[in-house]
Amino acid sequence: MSPGPAAVKQWHTPKVMQAHLETAFMDISTIIGLALAFGAMGGALAIMSGHGGGKVNMAGFIDPPAILMVVGGALCVALVGFPMKRVIAMALALKKLFFFRPENTAELIDEIVKLAEVARRDGLLALESKAKEIHNPFIALGIQMAVDGIKPETVEDVMRTEIRAMQARHAEGKKVMETIGRCGPAFGLVATLLGLILMLGNLSNAEAIGPSMAMALIGTLYGVATANFFAIPMAEKLGCLSHEESMVKEIVVRGVMAIQSGDSPRIVQQKLSTFLPPKLRGGSEEEAT
Amino acid sequence: MSPGPAAVKQWHTPKVMQAHLETAFMDISTIIGLALAFGAMGGALAIMSGHGGGKVNMAGFIDPPAILMVVGGALCVALVGFPMKRVIAMALALKKLFFFRPENTAELIDEIVKLAEVARRDGLLALESKAKEIHNPFIALGIQMAVDGIKPETVEDVMRTEIRAMQARHAEGKKVMETIGRCGPAFGLVATLLGLILMLGNLSNAEAIGPSMAMALIGTLYGVATANFFAIPMAEKLGCLSHEESMVKEIVVRGVMAIQSGDSPRIVQQKLSTFLPPKLRGGSEEEAT
Amino acid sequence: MSPGPAAVKQWHTPKVMQAHLETAFMDISTIIGLALAFGAMGGALAIMSGHGGGKVNMAGFIDPPAILMVVGGALCVALVGFPMKRVIAMALALKKLFFFRPENTAELIDEIVKLAEVARRDGLLALESKAKEIHNPFIALGIQMAVDGIKPETVEDVMRTEIRAMQARHAEGKKVMETIGRCGPAFGLVATLLGLILMLGNLSNAEAIGPSMAMALIGTLYGVATANFFAIPMAEKLGCLSHEESMVKEIVVRGVMAIQSGDSPRIVQQKLSTFLPPKLRGGSEEEAT
Amino acid sequence: MSPGPAAVKQWHTPKVMQAHLETAFMDISTIIGLALAFGAMGGALAIMSGHGGGKVNMAGFIDPPAILMVVGGALCVALVGFPMKRVIAMALALKKLFFFRPENTAELIDEIVKLAEVARRDGLLALESKAKEIHNPFIALGIQMAVDGIKPETVEDVMRTEIRAMQARHAEGKKVMETIGRCGPAFGLVATLLGLILMLGNLSNAEAIGPSMAMALIGTLYGVATANFFAIPMAEKLGCLSHEESMVKEIVVRGVMAIQSGDSPRIVQQKLSTFLPPKLRGGSEEEAT
Amino acid sequence: MSPGPAAVKQWHTPKVMQAHLETAFMDISTIIGLALAFGAMGGALAIMSGHGGGKVNMAGFIDPPAILMVVGGALCVALVGFPMKRVIAMALALKKLFFFRPENTAELIDEIVKLAEVARRDGLLALESKAKEIHNPFIALGIQMAVDGIKPETVEDVMRTEIRAMQARHAEGKKVMETIGRCGPAFGLVATLLGLILMLGNLSNAEAIGPSMAMALIGTLYGVATANFFAIPMAEKLGCLSHEESMVKEIVVRGVMAIQSGDSPRIVQQKLSTFLPPKLRGGSEEEAT
Repeated sequence: MSPGPAAVKQWHTPKVMQAHLETAFMDISTIIGLALAFGAMGGALAIMSGHGGGKVNMAGFIDPPAILMVVGGALCVALVGFPMKRVIAMALALKKLFFFRPENTAELIDEIVKLAEVARRDGLLALESKAKEIHNPFIALGIQMAVDGIKPETVEDVMRTEIRAMQARHAEGKKVMETIGRCGPAFGLVATLLGLILMLGNLSNAEAIGPSMAMALIGTLYGVATANFFAIPMAEKLGCLSHEESMVKEIVVRGVMAIQSGDSPRIVQQKLSTFLPPKLRGGSEEEAT
Repeated sequence: MSPGPAAVKQWHTPKVMQAHLETAFMDISTIIGLALAFGAMGGALAIMSGHGGGKVNMAGFIDPPAILMVVGGALCVALVGFPMKRVIAMALALKKLFFFRPENTAELIDEIVKLAEVARRDGLLALESKAKEIHNPFIALGIQMAVDGIKPETVEDVMRTEIRAMQARHAEGKKVMETIGRCGPAFGLVATLLGLILMLGNLSNAEAIGPSMAMALIGTLYGVATANFFAIPMAEKLGCLSHEESMVKEIVVRGVMAIQSGDSPRIVQQKLSTFLPPKLRGGSEEEAT
Repeated sequence: MSPGPAAVKQWHTPKVMQAHLETAFMDISTIIGLALAFGAMGGALAIMSGHGGGKVNMAGFIDPPAILMVVGGALCVALVGFPMKRVIAMALALKKLFFFRPENTAELIDEIVKLAEVARRDGLLALESKAKEIHNPFIALGIQMAVDGIKPETVEDVMRTEIRAMQARHAEGKKVMETIGRCGPAFGLVATLLGLILMLGNLSNAEAIGPSMAMALIGTLYGVATANFFAIPMAEKLGCLSHEESMVKEIVVRGVMAIQSGDSPRIVQQKLSTFLPPKLRGGSEEEAT
Repeated sequence: MSPGPAAVKQWHTPKVMQAHLETAFMDISTIIGLALAFGAMGGALAIMSGHGGGKVNMAGFIDPPAILMVVGGALCVALVGFPMKRVIAMALALKKLFFFRPENTAELIDEIVKLAEVARRDGLLALESKAKEIHNPFIALGIQMAVDGIKPETVEDVMRTEIRAMQARHAEGKKVMETIGRCGPAFGLVATLLGLILMLGNLSNAEAIGPSMAMALIGTLYGVATANFFAIPMAEKLGCLSHEESMVKEIVVRGVMAIQSGDSPRIVQQKLSTFLPPKLRGGSEEEAT
Repeated sequence: MSPGPAAVKQWHTPKVMQAHLETAFMDISTIIGLALAFGAMGGALAIMSGHGGGKVNMAGFIDPPAILMVVGGALCVALVGFPMKRVIAMALALKKLFFFRPENTAELIDEIVKLAEVARRDGLLALESKAKEIHNPFIALGIQMAVDGIKPETVEDVMRTEIRAMQARHAEGKKVMETIGRCGPAFGLVATLLGLILMLGNLSNAEAIGPSMAMALIGTLYGVATANFFAIPMAEKLGCLSHEESMVKEIVVRGVMAIQSGDSPRIVQQKLSTFLPPKLRGGSEEEAT
């Protein structure tokens, strides 16, 4: 009933290739999204200034005090709200938003299934020599503990604690960005209020009222855009990436558990492939043969 | 005590027919709802322009920069906030909102009860030949694993992991729409702010103030309508559909578990029919006979 | 130690009567609350128009386009956001908000305790004849399954699935109203924005500005009032009613479980009476005798 | 190893006295807080009217229609949103906010430890005579059930159901206040909108515009102050009081469980004193001797 | 396979040193963050007043009635919303925000591993003499209970109850600050409304309108800044500190459990080091040798 290793490998080939194509390129959606936001603002201004009959002055939308308030406010919220090391870790994690290459889950499952075949054929200890070839350090950790004869409960406990700790670190990073998103409009509002208060205390110069109010409103614009085009969606994506990393690690935990409990490669394959979106899975009919 | 298969089938017939009538037509509530929203806006404008003495100019409510900001903003939030594949999956899932045909739960339960009868009468292995006729791939997966003699815990584990993975995919799709709904008013506000800032920097032309402000406010209108008539309720419906699909799959899991543990068709029927709304269930008096 | 049935009945009599008085009349708080809201608005207008020196024109507060937007918006949110059958079920459930007669919990516990006495004295099967007299269909379901010799775990499972399914139906209904409450102010704002945009595009007629703005603001008034006087509190009350029904069904589950496990009527009484507010319970001193 | 009863009593004496001092006086923070809010508003007005050169007219801030709207709105939300009996219970519970005397936890633990000594020395049944002297009805209930030989699981189940029921009652009461806090600003906004709409429909009298707008804004002031100075913090304090009562009852449950399972008084003391803030606990060094 | 104590100590040395460097200095991010917020506001004002052509008058931004309202409002919310002792505890806990020195987790794990070596080599009772040298009172508590022969379940129960009680105290403190952050903008709005109402009732002096509105807006500025630069991020940091303290105590619980169950020092090391960020951990290759 349990097919030989060659057969197992053959099953997955097309899926692995499809998955490979899907993950060969980085996910540059963050860059595209930001470009769209700036493009939309620029385009809207161009059309509007055509309508209004005036000439659009893009430089008129660069307002140093508002920039100061939004940047200062974001730094204030991050540093008052979170320990320094969390803020730095989050800042470094932002890189991932732009250059994220998703893990090839099908390939990962394939690798675990191959380890399961070795364990089934030659025993758990045979994995010791294979351990050197495992690139994924989380699989390596699990296999090494299994080979060392550590009890399954302990192996699972150690691996799950690791996942939880990673999730907690990620959740804190996301929280930094969420709090910036939550307070962002307020930073801009502070700039606007400062501008309005200065203007209202100085109403004698009636001609300056229009431009002063325009200038003051730029603060609100910055705050609203910062929160809604940057901080809130970036916090969401940090959450997505954390979820994806957790799922990958969860697959590894289940795989190592299954290998250690001596499941057949086919069962391991079936247990793990439920994590794949349907189109990347082998059909159940094929697997049932 | 356990009635013959014919009796069991007979019980359900009227319920199945009633359920059939309920699910024969698609749920086009989304289309009706959107038509009502647009109709209400058009009607309100028609009445208002009558009151104001002016002639309503519907075309005056089409504002390209505001459209640019709302569409650009929504795309920005989706792409900055979520991996590309999630956004595409969500966009494809929107189709379901318009052409959703709910699963006939009573028919599904009926099918599972029939499988339970076969298993009870002829043994689990007799289901192997029936497996070909099962249309629902999730039932087929469960029955095949049961026939293959895989342990109940493993069968349940595999099926539940599948449900959880589906729910996670759905939840992310819903999240995309929710975030657009949350940030939507801000997109319109950005368009309004851009318009106001341009106008305030250019107050010399007093006659243009009214129309400029009107134009600027259209941005706010678009943002508020996009969030409240489209994004927020669509996110809710994505959640409803996910919940419904989960419940259908949960019924299958319970059914397969009950079949594998050798429950009588009547117990299977009783366990599963608790998922039906009361009017589609057989009365307990009948069943107790 | 276990008192005879007569004694048990006697204990409860005063409590049952007190509870009877409490539940004899419908809870018409919804009607009173809505009357107060309308009364407050009318009274405030009357005082204000006295102050302002003008004559209050109540009819001036009836604004057809705003009514159209709020009703259309609420229908849009309900239909775009939820399956048609959910919306209809919620609309029917609104009746309960006005004509809700709470379950007499003390009487219910009394009924279960009497069944426990019969089971204790004459055995579980003696309940079969009693089953016909049970009005509450949920007790009847549980007792029938117990009499049929279905395993306690299965009985509990079936009953709890039923409760969870009811809670899920209720929660969806509440969600419909909550979403209307959340989006309500936006419907009014759309009406106000439409009015303002029309007015601003038409500033030549200076005398119409005041009345036009007044008309536009009525939209905001409708939206705010709809959300805060109707939708948000009604969603809360739907939640309260669901909670109350769940608690009543939870009492039944615990009661049936206790009867099936052969608890003495006194233990059943003690277990269930913890669900009663203290003043409706017998004192523990009495019960300990 | 287990010290005699005298020694146990002696340990706690200083802690009990310290706790006694802490709880001898009522917590009148609610009254102080409200006084501060009114004082701050009065003081701000006094300073402002000095600045503005005008004479502050406190009576000018009493606006009957706004009072009507805020009181009417709060009653509407409470009665539409919750069953009548919940609203009355909440209204009665408000008394606790002003005259709350916290339970002396150290004394409570002391009482339970003394009962544990009696149980350890003379057996569980010896507690029967002590039961009359127990003032706390929740301890009395637990001890009585233990003496009656009811199984520990049942005792714990009954007591925990009681706690959960109490928490549910409290949570509903808190919910009433929270909903008033959530909708509060809307009540004031309705008053302001009514005033503005009346004024805008009546612009001919230009001199009345200023005072009319001032009057209208008082509604907003009332709504904001009601929500933020009364309803939101009062809801929080209702939550705190519920949490405190739950913790006290949780201590009793743990204590009764420990007594019933025959723990030594020292273990009971150690288990329960973890609920005390550190400074009220005996140092672990002393206890380890 | 289990290395001698010397080897174990050697493993950690570099990590401990790195961790030492990281934790040698206090986390002064709160001070830096607040300085940045004030600097940004000052800088924005300086640039703005240059633009506007006027001379910036910093003293013009000090508004006693607004200060009164924001301070009075915050005190009101704290005292009405929470018991006096909670408010005082929170006020004292604010000190930690400024002078927080994070626990050296690597050193802590090292200390527990050394205790595990002693227990493994010389038995649990040998820890009694070591207990005097333990500085961390939570480790001392756990080890003392283990040495006293208290059952592992009881030891874990006592320690976890302690953690939960600490978390509950922290969560309440955080709640105080969160509620101030939530209501903060309302305090400023009240000041602004008071100012506007006074001004509107007194429109005769047209020249005072500008400065009066400027003054009124300062209230809003204070409220927005207080909530977003102080209260909301400080509530977040209180949460972070609580989380960090919980994690440290969780490490201790796991360590004491592992020691009591007789795990080898290497397993203890592996179980606990999952709590460290990866760079502070020994590589799994080294440990596997």
